[in-house]
Order: sequence, then structure tokens, then C-alpha cells
Amino acid sequence: MTADPWTLEEAVGQCAEHGVKHFGPWRHKLGGDAAKAAAVIRDGGLKVSSLCRGGWFSAPTPEERRQRIADNRVAIEEAATLDTSVLVMVCGPANGQTLDDARATVLDGLAEVLPDAEKAGIVLGIEPLHPMYAAERSVVVTLKQANDMAEQLASSSAGVVVDAFHVWWDPEVWNEIERARGRIAGFHVSDWSVPLPGILMGRSMMGDGVIELRRLRQAVEAAGYEGPIEVEIFNDEIWSTADDRLIPRMQQAFIDHC
Amino acid sequence: MTADPWTLEEAVGQCAEHGVKHFGPWRHKLGGDAAKAAAVIRDGGLKVSSLCRGGWFSAPTPEERRQRIADNRVAIEEAATLDTSVLVMVCGPANGQTLDDARATVLDGLAEVLPDAEKAGIVLGIEPLHPMYAAERSVVVTLKQANDMAEQLASSSAGVVVDAFHVWWDPEVWNEIERARGRIAGFHVSDWSVPLPGILMGRSMMGDGVIELRRLRQAVEAAGYEGPIEVEIFNDEIWSTADDRLIPRMQQAFIDHC
Repeated sequence: MTADPWTLEEAVGQCAEHGVKHFGPWRHKLGGDAAKAAAVIRDGGLKVSSLCRGGWFSAPTPEERRQRIADNRVAIEEAATLDTSVLVMVCGPANGQTLDDARATVLDGLAEVLPDAEKAGIVLGIEPLHPMYAAERSVVVTLKQANDMAEQLASSSAGVVVDAFHVWWDPEVWNEIERARGRIAGFHVSDWSVPLPGILMGRSMMGDGVIELRRLRQAVEAAGYEGPIEVEIFNDEIWSTADDRLIPRMQQAFIDHC
Repeated sequence: MTADPWTLEEAVGQCAEHGVKHFGPWRHKLGGDAAKAAAVIRDGGLKVSSLCRGGWFSAPTPEERRQRIADNRVAIEEAATLDTSVLVMVCGPANGQTLDDARATVLDGLAEVLPDAEKAGIVLGIEPLHPMYAAERSVVVTLKQANDMAEQLASSSAGVVVDAFHVWWDPEVWNEIERARGRIAGFHVSDWSVPLPGILMGRSMMGDGVIELRRLRQAVEAAGYEGPIEVEIFNDEIWSTADDRLIPRMQQAFIDHC
């Protein structure tokens, strides 16, 4: 997503050219054909770090909620086709329910698709989103909540994803990262610049903001996470200027600040 | 602040005309003369619910931090002059410190001015701000944090302020409101509309958003809060159209949604 204007082929090509080894596609980049996308990524010499995203369980009507469950099952299959073990779960907003009810809907949804994930060998990585997205994107807003849910689901297919942009402000994040030991399914980096360029497009390149990225990276690794680290930046300026220099710039920022 | 373009005299006049009994001025409305402002408010037949704001303890240099402490002492005196028992504390951003260090600076600052507050009979109402303001406004971002700080300060002058806009997203808020029993020094309402009109100017009229305002009001009252409720809306459209209809509109929204 750091280079969303690129096609899958372009993004894979840029990563391969600059020595990036893992790639984390969003589903809209698969073009409805996970097998073909898997071949593009594999042919570029890359492995898939995760597929983003499943979730979005809350919906105004029971019929729509059933469709969401069905769509999550498709996402699990796509993740398996891409040969990744992680499906990132953005759990969805309240969508007319109260927060409590929406949170219950999310947990029910996760429980419903969990057997499919177990069978496919996929970890559902519950990603808490920053509380400023509580109304529009996710009723899961803290790592504590994600850990509580994963604990209740009690399965090796129930994990959590730590995204620096979403959790950096939380006084509890250090304890909750340690508590997540053994279930951390991903770690995402970007930065929080001041003033924030926007709400949905508010992320910046690592080093351009105030997040203690290195400390977070060290905490996640101290809690046993050894997987790839994804750079995920939604930023209009980065998107509109994305060219051959983007990946090297990202790599340098990663080394300098993470 | 719901009608910031108005002078103090205009705001007091509008409130008095429409039967509002309490008024919560921000310090910039005092025009540097708390005694004169107190007279304007008193002459309008209103009582001061709180003075906003003290805090802002973090600063890059020790000298600036000393100035902030001195300014908090002035704010405590101004609150006493206004005959209110509450000074709302917006604790300040990290300002170049790490979050942990800035949080320690805030607690130190509160402890330093606490004896002055005790002597003046003023409660310092620690107000957690929404985590989207962690970089620019306040390193205190949850009611749990505010409760923890108030507990550590262990004084009848150490309280907390619950602002619906700042806390509505928090799964812990209901427990923390109950935990705040006996130290709730204020309750503020506005709403979170979707999409949010902005970050610093992001608030809406009650009923125009998704916050469970009535449930929050009931929770705060169930935890023993019997004081006035402040409507605090930063909104460009409300400010630019503020006229004789604003206070009645606010009152109706309050009745309908709070």
C-alpha cells in the first residue's frame, strides 16, 4: 500500500530490483485471481508476508453479515494460495450497532471463520486500529482488546498484528506486546507526523514523525516476533511521486529509524 | 468554546437569555483580568462551571517548564477569582521528550502545583484527550491514565474530567468512570460525526455523530457526578454561523441526545 498507484507487477518488480524479500499485498491488488497474483510474486523472487485484509464483520443486516463471513472464507483461501500464513484482520466499524454489540459481532465473526483458518494453516492477525478510526474502520482499538479476543479464541490461528501507527500512543502497549508473545503475526511501520496530513491518509515515512519505532521494533522482537516487518504508508504525496527512488528511500528510512 | 467568535459579554448574554445557568470560560476569554471577567459572568446571573485550561507541563527546556508551572499557579488563582472549584488540565504533548518521560514530566508538574490548588480549594481536573492528540496536545490519552495519576497524587484536589469526544472509543471507559467515583470534576459533551470534519476542529453538535452520549452521561452520574455538564464544540461551521439560534439549538440537542 506504500505504493498503491503501482500495479502488482510494478510493485513486485521494484521490490525485487532493490532486494526486498517479502511483499504484503492487499486484496484489491489480486485482481480477483489469487493464483495468478501468487505466480507474479513468486516469479519476482518474493515471498508473501501477509494478505490484507479480512474482517469487516459488522454490517447492518444479518444477510450482509453472512456475506462478510463468506468473504472472509474466500480471503483465507486466497492467503493459502499466496503461500502466506497470515491474514490481517481489520475488524470493521460499528455500522449502526453500539460499540459493545459491534465488538461482540466481531468476536462472533472471528470464531465463525476460525475453523477455516485452522484447516488452511492461516493465522488471523487481529489488528487494533488507532481510536480515531473507531467510527469508520475498526471497533478494535487497542492491543489489549486484540489480545483479549485472541485469548478467548484460544487457537494457534488467532493472532494479533502490531502496527506502530495504530498503537504508539498507548501507555499499555509495552505490557501488551509482551503479553502477545507467541501470537504476534505481523509488525507494521510508518510514522505519525505533526501536523497529521489527514485522517485516512495520515501516515508518513519512518523518521518523519514522532513514533518511537526502534523501541517498538525491539519490543516486538523481544516478545519473540521473527517474521518480516511491513512498511505500510498511506500518504498522498508518497503515492503521487512514487518512482524508482521510493523503495531505496523506504529502505534507508527503515534502517535509520526502525 | 462552542461559540468562540463571541466576546465574553456576548456569550454570557446569550446564555443568560436562554436560561443556561453555568458557564465554562477558557482563559483567553478572560482578557488577562479574571476579576473583571468574574463580574461579567456574575452580573449575567451565571456561575462558572470550570476554568479551562491549566496543564501543558512539557516543554523543551527546564526554564520553559518553570514558566509553565508559574502559569499554572496563575490559572489556579484565576479559577479561585472566578469562584469555580475546577481547573481543567490539558496536560500537554511530548514536545521532544519520549512519551514515558513526558508523562513523568506531567505527573511532576501536577504534584508541584497541587499544594497551591489545595490551598485555593481548586480541583485539578486531569482531562485525558483522544489519542489522536497525543502528538500535539496531551500525552494523557485514557481515563485509566488520568485515574492512575489522580490516585498517585492522592489529594481531594486531584480529579479527572470526562469528555465524551475524548473517551467514547475506549473499551475500558465504563470501568474507569466507575473507578473515578468521587473524583469526577467535570463532564463535557459534543459528538463524533462521520467523516470527522477535521482533527483539531473535529467536533459536532450532540446527535450529529456516533457517541453514546446518554449512556456516558448516565455512567458519570451513576459514579456520583452531580455537577454541571459542559457543551464544548470546536467546529468551524458552528463558529461561523453562531447567532441567536445557537444556544437554543444546543439546548435542544442536549435534551434529545444527552
